[in-house]
Amino acid sequence: MKRTPRNSEKTRAHILEVAFLEIYSRGFHAVGIREIAAKAELTIGAFFHHFPTKNDVAFAIVEEIIRPGILERWISPLATYKNPVEGILGCFKTTFEGWPDDYVKLGCPLNNLTQEMSHVDASIRERTQSVLNDWIDGTERYLKQAQQDGYVKKSADPRSAAEFIVTLQEGTFAMGKALSDRRVFDSNYRSLKIYLDSISEAAKLSE
Amino acid sequence: MKRTPRNSEKTRAHILEVAFLEIYSRGFHAVGIREIAAKAELTIGAFFHHFPTKNDVAFAIVEEIIRPGILERWISPLATYKNPVEGILGCFKTTFEGWPDDYVKLGCPLNNLTQEMSHVDASIRERTQSVLNDWIDGTERYLKQAQQDGYVKKSADPRSAAEFIVTLQEGTFAMGKALSDRRVFDSNYRSLKIYLDSISEAAKLSE
Repeated sequence: MKRTPRNSEKTRAHILEVAFLEIYSRGFHAVGIREIAAKAELTIGAFFHHFPTKNDVAFAIVEEIIRPGILERWISPLATYKNPVEGILGCFKTTFEGWPDDYVKLGCPLNNLTQEMSHVDASIRERTQSVLNDWIDGTERYLKQAQQDGYVKKSADPRSAAEFIVTLQEGTFAMGKALSDRRVFDSNYRSLKIYLDSISEAAKLSE
Repeated sequence: MKRTPRNSEKTRAHILEVAFLEIYSRGFHAVGIREIAAKAELTIGAFFHHFPTKNDVAFAIVEEIIRPGILERWISPLATYKNPVEGILGCFKTTFEGWPDDYVKLGCPLNNLTQEMSHVDASIRERTQSVLNDWIDGTERYLKQAQQDGYVKKSADPRSAAEFIVTLQEGTFAMGKALSDRRVFDSNYRSLKIYLDSISEAAKLSE
Protein backbone atom coordinates (compact mmCIF):
# COMPACT_ATOMS: atom_id res chain seq x y z
CA MET A 1 0.00 0.00 0.00
CA LYS A 2 1.64 3.21 -1.13
CA ARG A 3 0.85 6.37 0.72
CA THR A 4 -0.62 9.13 -1.46
CA PRO A 5 1.20 12.31 -0.63
CA ARG A 6 -1.40 14.89 0.23
CA ASN A 7 1.15 17.40 1.22
CA SER A 8 4.40 17.60 -0.69
CA GLU A 9 6.31 19.25 2.12
CA LYS A 10 5.24 16.58 4.60
CA THR A 11 6.26 13.83 2.19
CA ARG A 12 9.68 15.39 1.75
CA ALA A 13 10.14 15.69 5.51
CA HIS A 14 9.02 12.09 5.95
CA ILE A 15 11.51 10.78 3.36
CA LEU A 16 14.25 12.82 4.98
CA GLU A 17 13.53 11.43 8.43
CA VAL A 18 13.43 7.85 7.19
CA ALA A 19 16.61 8.33 5.14
CA PHE A 20 18.40 9.93 8.07
CA LEU A 21 17.64 7.03 10.40
CA GLU A 22 18.51 4.36 7.83
CA ILE A 23 21.79 6.02 6.86
CA TYR A 24 22.66 6.81 10.46
CA SER A 25 22.14 3.23 11.57
CA ARG A 26 23.60 1.41 8.55
CA GLY A 27 25.88 3.80 6.63
CA PHE A 28 25.52 5.83 3.44
CA HIS A 29 26.84 3.20 1.02
CA ALA A 30 24.91 0.37 2.62
CA VAL A 31 21.50 1.98 2.18
CA GLY A 32 19.85 2.10 -1.25
CA ILE A 33 17.25 4.55 -2.55
CA ARG A 34 14.82 1.66 -3.07
CA GLU A 35 15.09 0.69 0.58
CA ILE A 36 14.49 4.25 1.72
CA ALA A 37 11.44 4.54 -0.54
CA ALA A 38 10.09 1.18 0.66
CA LYS A 39 10.65 2.07 4.31
CA ALA A 40 8.91 5.41 3.73
CA GLU A 41 6.05 3.56 1.99
CA LEU A 42 6.47 5.62 -1.14
CA THR A 43 7.20 4.89 -4.78
CA ILE A 44 10.67 5.43 -6.18
CA GLY A 45 9.05 8.12 -8.34
CA ALA A 46 7.93 10.04 -5.27
CA PHE A 47 11.42 9.76 -3.87
CA PHE A 48 13.04 11.09 -7.05
CA HIS A 49 10.52 13.90 -7.19
CA HIS A 50 11.93 15.24 -3.93
CA PHE A 51 15.52 14.05 -4.18
CA PRO A 52 16.85 13.63 -7.73
CA THR A 53 19.96 11.78 -6.46
CA LYS A 54 21.09 9.97 -3.34
CA ASN A 55 23.61 12.75 -2.77
CA ASP A 56 20.73 15.24 -2.58
CA VAL A 57 19.46 13.27 0.41
CA ALA A 58 22.90 13.48 2.03
CA PHE A 59 23.00 17.25 1.44
CA ALA A 60 19.54 17.71 2.99
CA ILE A 61 20.46 15.51 5.97
CA VAL A 62 23.55 17.64 6.61
CA GLU A 63 21.88 21.03 6.14
CA GLU A 64 18.44 20.39 7.61
CA ILE A 65 19.08 17.84 10.37
CA ILE A 66 22.76 17.67 11.33
CA ARG A 67 23.81 21.34 11.16
CA PRO A 68 20.93 22.76 13.26
CA GLY A 69 21.16 19.77 15.64
CA ILE A 70 24.85 20.34 16.32
CA LEU A 71 24.62 24.11 16.74
CA GLU A 72 21.66 23.69 19.07
CA ARG A 73 23.46 21.07 21.12
CA TRP A 74 26.96 22.55 21.36
CA ILE A 75 26.85 26.28 20.61
CA SER A 76 23.50 27.92 21.45
CA PRO A 77 23.52 26.83 25.13
CA LEU A 78 26.86 28.62 25.68
CA ALA A 79 25.01 31.97 25.56
CA THR A 80 23.28 31.12 28.83
CA TYR A 81 26.51 30.77 30.84
CA LYS A 82 28.32 33.70 32.42
CA ASN A 83 31.54 31.72 31.90
CA PRO A 84 31.31 29.94 28.52
CA VAL A 85 34.01 27.45 29.58
CA GLU A 86 31.56 26.11 32.15
CA GLY A 87 29.07 25.97 29.30
CA ILE A 88 31.40 23.79 27.23
CA LEU A 89 31.76 21.42 30.16
CA GLY A 90 28.00 21.54 30.81
CA CYS A 91 27.12 20.72 27.17
CA PHE A 92 29.52 17.79 27.23
CA LYS A 93 27.94 16.41 30.40
CA THR A 94 24.35 16.97 29.23
CA THR A 95 24.99 15.44 25.82
CA PHE A 96 26.77 12.30 26.91
CA GLU A 97 24.76 11.66 30.06
CA GLY A 98 21.56 11.98 28.05
CA TRP A 99 22.76 9.97 25.05
CA PRO A 100 20.46 6.92 24.75
CA ASP A 101 22.09 3.51 25.34
CA ASP A 102 20.84 2.25 21.99
CA TYR A 103 22.67 5.05 20.20
CA VAL A 104 26.05 4.61 21.86
CA LYS A 105 27.11 2.11 19.23
CA LEU A 106 25.82 4.37 16.44
CA GLY A 107 27.92 7.40 17.40
CA CYS A 108 27.49 10.87 15.89
CA PRO A 109 25.68 11.16 12.54
CA LEU A 110 28.08 13.86 11.29
CA ASN A 111 31.13 11.85 12.23
CA ASN A 112 29.77 8.70 10.56
CA LEU A 113 28.99 10.46 7.30
CA THR A 114 32.29 12.34 7.37
CA GLN A 115 34.44 9.31 8.08
CA GLU A 116 32.67 7.19 5.48
CA MET A 117 32.24 9.74 2.70
CA SER A 118 34.44 12.82 3.02
CA HIS A 119 37.42 11.28 1.21
CA VAL A 120 35.39 9.75 -1.59
CA ASP A 121 32.88 12.49 -2.41
CA ALA A 122 33.98 16.13 -2.54
CA SER A 123 30.41 17.45 -2.67
CA ILE A 124 29.56 15.73 0.63
CA ARG A 125 32.91 16.72 2.16
CA GLU A 126 32.28 20.37 1.34
CA ARG A 127 29.08 20.31 3.41
CA THR A 128 30.27 18.22 6.38
CA GLN A 129 33.39 20.40 6.52
CA SER A 130 31.32 23.54 6.63
CA VAL A 131 29.31 22.22 9.61
CA LEU A 132 32.52 21.33 11.45
CA ASN A 133 33.94 24.78 10.73
CA ASP A 134 30.78 26.42 12.11
CA TRP A 135 31.09 24.25 15.21
CA ILE A 136 34.76 25.18 15.71
CA ASP A 137 34.11 28.87 14.91
CA GLY A 138 31.25 29.03 17.42
CA THR A 139 33.39 27.42 20.13
CA GLU A 140 36.28 29.79 19.36
CA ARG A 141 33.97 32.83 19.56
CA TYR A 142 32.85 31.89 23.07
CA LEU A 143 36.40 31.07 24.18
CA LYS A 144 37.51 34.54 23.00
CA GLN A 145 34.68 36.08 24.96
CA ALA A 146 35.67 34.02 28.02
CA GLN A 147 39.24 35.25 27.57
CA GLN A 148 38.13 38.89 27.33
CA ASP A 149 36.03 38.44 30.45
CA GLY A 150 39.03 37.07 32.35
CA TYR A 151 37.95 33.42 32.59
CA VAL A 152 40.53 32.02 30.17
CA LYS A 153 44.28 32.61 30.49
CA LYS A 154 45.77 35.23 28.17
CA SER A 155 48.34 32.64 27.09
CA ALA A 156 45.65 30.30 25.69
CA ASP A 157 45.00 30.24 21.93
CA PRO A 158 41.20 30.21 21.45
CA ARG A 159 41.39 28.75 17.91
CA SER A 160 43.66 25.92 18.90
CA ALA A 161 41.58 25.22 22.02
CA ALA A 162 38.35 25.22 19.96
CA GLU A 163 39.81 22.69 17.50
CA PHE A 164 40.92 20.51 20.39
CA ILE A 165 37.54 20.68 22.12
CA VAL A 166 35.60 19.77 18.95
CA THR A 167 38.08 16.96 18.26
CA LEU A 168 37.20 15.63 21.70
CA GLN A 169 33.46 16.07 21.33
CA GLU A 170 33.49 14.12 18.05
CA GLY A 171 36.24 11.78 19.25
CA THR A 172 34.25 10.83 22.33
CA PHE A 173 31.28 9.80 20.20
CA ALA A 174 33.64 7.80 18.00
CA MET A 175 35.28 6.07 20.95
CA GLY A 176 31.95 5.24 22.61
CA LYS A 177 30.87 3.70 19.32
CA ALA A 178 34.15 1.87 18.72
CA LEU A 179 34.20 0.37 22.22
CA SER A 180 30.41 -0.02 22.30
CA ASP A 181 30.64 1.28 25.84
CA ARG A 182 29.51 4.56 27.36
CA ARG A 183 32.04 4.36 30.18
CA VAL A 184 34.45 6.42 28.08
CA PHE A 185 31.94 9.31 28.16
CA ASP A 186 32.50 9.90 31.92
CA SER A 187 36.16 9.23 31.63
CA ASN A 188 36.63 11.84 28.88
CA TYR A 189 34.48 14.31 30.78
CA ARG A 190 36.93 14.17 33.68
CA SER A 191 39.92 14.63 31.41
CA LEU A 192 38.26 17.46 29.47
CA LYS A 193 37.70 19.16 32.83
CA ILE A 194 41.42 18.82 33.65
CA TYR A 195 42.26 20.43 30.32
CA LEU A 196 39.73 23.26 30.68
CA ASP A 197 40.92 23.90 34.24
CA SER A 198 44.43 24.27 32.96
CA ILE A 199 43.52 26.94 30.40
CA SER A 200 41.26 28.75 32.90
CA GLU A 201 42.30 31.81 34.87
CA ALA A 202 40.10 31.05 37.87
CA ALA A 203 40.54 28.17 40.30
CA LYS A 204 38.69 24.93 39.52
CA LEU A 205 35.61 25.09 37.33
CA SER A 206 32.41 24.07 39.05
CA GLU A 207 31.17 20.61 38.01
CA MET B 1 46.83 -11.34 -18.06
CA LYS B 2 46.37 -13.21 -14.80
CA ARG B 3 49.35 -13.79 -12.58
CA THR B 4 50.08 -17.45 -11.81
CA PRO B 5 50.69 -17.74 -8.10
CA ARG B 6 54.02 -19.47 -7.65
CA ASN B 7 54.03 -18.91 -4.00
CA SER B 8 50.78 -19.14 -2.12
CA GLU B 9 51.98 -17.07 0.81
CA LYS B 10 53.16 -14.28 -1.46
CA THR B 11 49.84 -14.26 -3.29
CA ARG B 12 47.96 -13.98 -0.04
CA ALA B 13 50.16 -11.10 1.11
CA HIS B 14 49.70 -9.40 -2.25
CA ILE B 15 45.88 -9.66 -2.08
CA LEU B 16 45.95 -8.35 1.47
CA GLU B 17 48.04 -5.33 0.54
CA VAL B 18 45.85 -4.49 -2.45
CA ALA B 19 42.66 -4.98 -0.40
CA PHE B 20 44.01 -2.83 2.42
CA LEU B 21 44.78 0.10 0.13
CA GLU B 22 41.49 -0.14 -1.76
CA ILE B 23 39.40 -0.38 1.41
CA TYR B 24 41.43 2.30 3.17
CA SER B 25 41.00 4.75 0.32
CA ARG B 26 37.39 4.00 -0.62
CA GLY B 27 35.66 2.27 2.29
CA PHE B 28 34.71 -1.33 3.07
CA HIS B 29 31.25 -1.29 1.52
CA ALA B 30 32.34 0.59 -1.56
CA VAL B 31 34.97 -1.98 -2.59
CA GLY B 32 33.91 -5.29 -4.10
CA ILE B 33 35.80 -8.58 -4.12
CA ARG B 34 35.88 -8.51 -7.91
CA GLU B 35 37.61 -5.14 -7.87
CA ILE B 36 40.21 -6.35 -5.39
CA ALA B 37 40.89 -9.45 -7.48
CA ALA B 38 41.14 -7.38 -10.69
CA LYS B 39 43.45 -4.84 -9.04
CA ALA B 40 45.59 -7.70 -7.71
CA GLU B 41 45.63 -9.25 -11.22
CA LEU B 42 44.21 -12.50 -9.92
CA THR B 43 41.11 -14.56 -10.61
CA ILE B 44 38.17 -14.48 -8.24
CA GLY B 45 38.98 -18.14 -7.58
CA ALA B 46 42.46 -17.27 -6.34
CA PHE B 47 40.94 -14.64 -4.11
CA PHE B 48 38.41 -17.05 -2.60
CA HIS B 49 41.12 -19.63 -2.11
CA HIS B 50 42.83 -17.28 0.34
CA PHE B 51 39.82 -15.38 1.69
CA PRO B 52 36.53 -17.30 1.61
CA THR B 53 34.53 -14.13 2.41
CA LYS B 54 35.02 -10.36 2.27
CA ASN B 55 34.89 -10.32 6.07
CA ASP B 56 37.90 -12.64 6.15
CA VAL B 57 39.84 -9.90 4.35
CA ALA B 58 38.69 -7.37 6.97
CA PHE B 59 39.80 -9.69 9.78
CA ALA B 60 43.23 -10.19 8.19
CA ILE B 61 43.62 -6.43 7.60
CA VAL B 62 42.87 -5.77 11.27
CA GLU B 63 45.07 -8.54 12.68
CA GLU B 64 47.99 -8.52 10.27
CA ILE B 65 48.27 -4.86 9.21
CA ILE B 66 46.40 -2.54 11.57
CA ARG B 67 47.12 -4.12 14.98
CA PRO B 68 50.91 -4.43 14.57
CA GLY B 69 51.03 -1.01 12.86
CA ILE B 70 49.29 0.73 15.74
CA LEU B 71 51.26 -0.97 18.50
CA GLU B 72 54.50 -0.21 16.69
CA ARG B 73 53.54 3.42 16.19
CA TRP B 74 52.01 4.28 19.57
CA ILE B 75 53.14 1.76 22.19
CA SER B 76 56.54 0.18 21.45
CA PRO B 77 58.41 3.53 21.24
CA LEU B 78 57.30 4.39 24.80
CA ALA B 79 59.80 1.84 26.14
CA THR B 80 62.67 4.03 24.93
CA TYR B 81 61.69 7.05 27.05
CA LYS B 82 62.72 7.52 30.68
CA ASN B 83 59.45 9.45 31.14
CA PRO B 84 56.74 7.69 29.10
CA VAL B 85 54.62 10.88 29.09
CA GLU B 86 57.30 12.49 26.96
CA GLY B 87 57.07 9.39 24.79
CA ILE B 88 53.33 9.90 24.29
CA LEU B 89 53.98 13.46 23.22
CA GLY B 90 56.90 12.36 21.02
CA CYS B 91 54.83 9.67 19.25
CA PHE B 92 52.08 12.19 18.57
CA LYS B 93 54.57 14.63 17.04
CA THR B 94 56.40 12.00 15.01
CA THR B 95 53.19 10.47 13.69
CA PHE B 96 51.42 13.61 12.63
CA GLU B 97 54.48 15.50 11.39
CA GLY B 98 55.42 12.51 9.27
CA TRP B 99 51.91 11.76 8.01
CA PRO B 100 51.98 12.13 4.20
CA ASP B 101 49.88 15.00 2.77
CA ASP B 102 48.05 12.58 0.46
CA TYR B 103 46.88 10.56 3.44
CA VAL B 104 45.52 13.44 5.54
CA LYS B 105 42.13 13.16 3.89
CA LEU B 106 42.15 9.37 4.31
CA GLY B 107 42.62 9.41 8.08
CA CYS B 108 43.37 6.32 10.19
CA PRO B 109 42.56 2.89 8.70
CA LEU B 110 41.32 1.56 12.06
CA ASN B 111 39.09 4.55 12.63
CA ASN B 112 37.63 4.33 9.12
CA LEU B 113 36.79 0.65 9.40
CA THR B 114 35.44 1.09 12.93
CA GLN B 115 33.25 4.07 12.12
CA GLU B 116 31.87 2.46 8.97
CA MET B 117 31.44 -1.12 10.17
CA SER B 118 31.47 -1.56 13.95
CA HIS B 119 27.74 -0.91 14.38
CA VAL B 120 26.66 -3.07 11.46
CA ASP B 121 28.92 -6.11 11.81
CA ALA B 122 29.62 -7.62 15.23
CA SER B 123 32.42 -9.85 13.95
CA ILE B 124 34.35 -6.84 12.66
CA ARG B 125 33.55 -4.80 15.78
CA GLU B 126 34.93 -7.55 18.00
CA ARG B 127 38.31 -7.27 16.26
CA THR B 128 38.57 -3.48 15.95
CA GLN B 129 37.51 -3.20 19.58
CA SER B 130 40.22 -5.58 20.66
CA VAL B 131 42.88 -3.47 18.88
CA LEU B 132 41.59 -0.31 20.56
CA ASN B 133 41.62 -2.02 23.93
CA ASP B 134 45.23 -3.12 23.39
CA TRP B 135 46.09 0.46 22.46
CA ILE B 136 44.41 1.87 25.59
CA ASP B 137 45.83 -0.89 27.82
CA GLY B 138 49.36 -0.23 26.55
CA THR B 139 49.02 3.51 27.13
CA GLU B 140 47.62 2.90 30.62
CA ARG B 141 50.50 0.56 31.48
CA TYR B 142 53.08 3.22 30.64
CA LEU B 143 51.14 5.94 32.46
CA LYS B 144 51.07 3.74 35.58
CA GLN B 145 54.80 3.26 35.29
CA ALA B 146 55.23 7.03 34.87
CA GLN B 147 53.13 7.54 37.98
CA GLN B 148 55.19 5.04 39.97
CA ASP B 149 58.37 6.77 38.82
CA GLY B 150 57.04 10.13 40.01
CA TYR B 151 56.41 11.73 36.60
CA VAL B 152 52.61 11.67 36.79
CA LYS B 153 50.59 13.15 39.66
CA LYS B 154 49.22 10.69 42.20
CA SER B 155 45.78 12.25 41.68
CA ALA B 156 45.69 11.28 37.99
CA ASP B 157 43.71 8.20 36.91
CA PRO B 158 45.89 6.29 34.41
CA ARG B 159 42.94 4.43 32.84
CA SER B 160 40.91 7.56 32.30
CA ALA B 161 43.96 9.41 30.97
CA ALA B 162 44.76 6.53 28.59
CA GLU B 163 41.21 6.56 27.19
CA PHE B 164 41.41 10.32 26.72
CA ILE B 165 44.80 10.14 24.99
CA VAL B 166 43.68 7.42 22.56
CA THR B 167 40.45 9.35 21.89
CA LEU B 168 42.67 12.27 20.90
CA GLN B 169 45.08 10.22 18.80
CA GLU B 170 42.17 8.76 16.80
CA GLY B 171 40.17 11.99 16.97
CA THR B 172 43.03 13.98 15.50
CA PHE B 173 43.19 11.68 12.49
CA ALA B 174 39.43 12.00 12.12
CA MET B 175 39.51 15.79 12.34
CA GLY B 176 42.40 16.11 9.88
CA LYS B 177 40.40 13.96 7.48
CA ALA B 178 37.11 15.78 8.08
CA LEU B 179 38.69 19.21 7.55
CA SER B 180 41.05 17.91 4.87
CA ASP B 181 43.69 20.02 6.60
CA ARG B 182 46.76 19.03 8.59
CA ARG B 183 46.79 22.32 10.53
CA VAL B 184 44.72 20.65 13.26
CA PHE B 185 47.61 18.21 13.86
CA ASP B 186 49.86 20.98 15.27
CA SER B 187 47.01 22.58 17.05
CA ASN B 188 46.03 19.39 18.86
CA TYR B 189 49.67 18.68 19.68
CA ARG B 190 49.85 21.95 21.59
CA SER B 191 46.63 21.22 23.47
CA LEU B 192 47.66 17.64 24.24
CA LYS B 193 50.85 19.07 25.72
CA ILE B 194 48.81 21.41 27.96
CA TYR B 195 46.79 18.41 29.16
CA LEU B 196 49.85 16.20 29.75
CA ASP B 197 51.60 19.05 31.57
CA SER B 198 48.63 19.33 33.86
CA ILE B 199 48.71 15.66 34.89
CA SER B 200 52.51 15.69 35.22
CA GLU B 201 54.34 16.06 38.51
CA ALA B 202 57.37 17.80 37.03
CA ALA B 203 57.48 21.29 35.56
CA LYS B 204 56.84 21.61 31.81
CA LEU B 205 57.51 18.60 29.61
CA SER B 206 60.27 19.12 27.11
CA GLU B 207 58.98 19.58 23.55
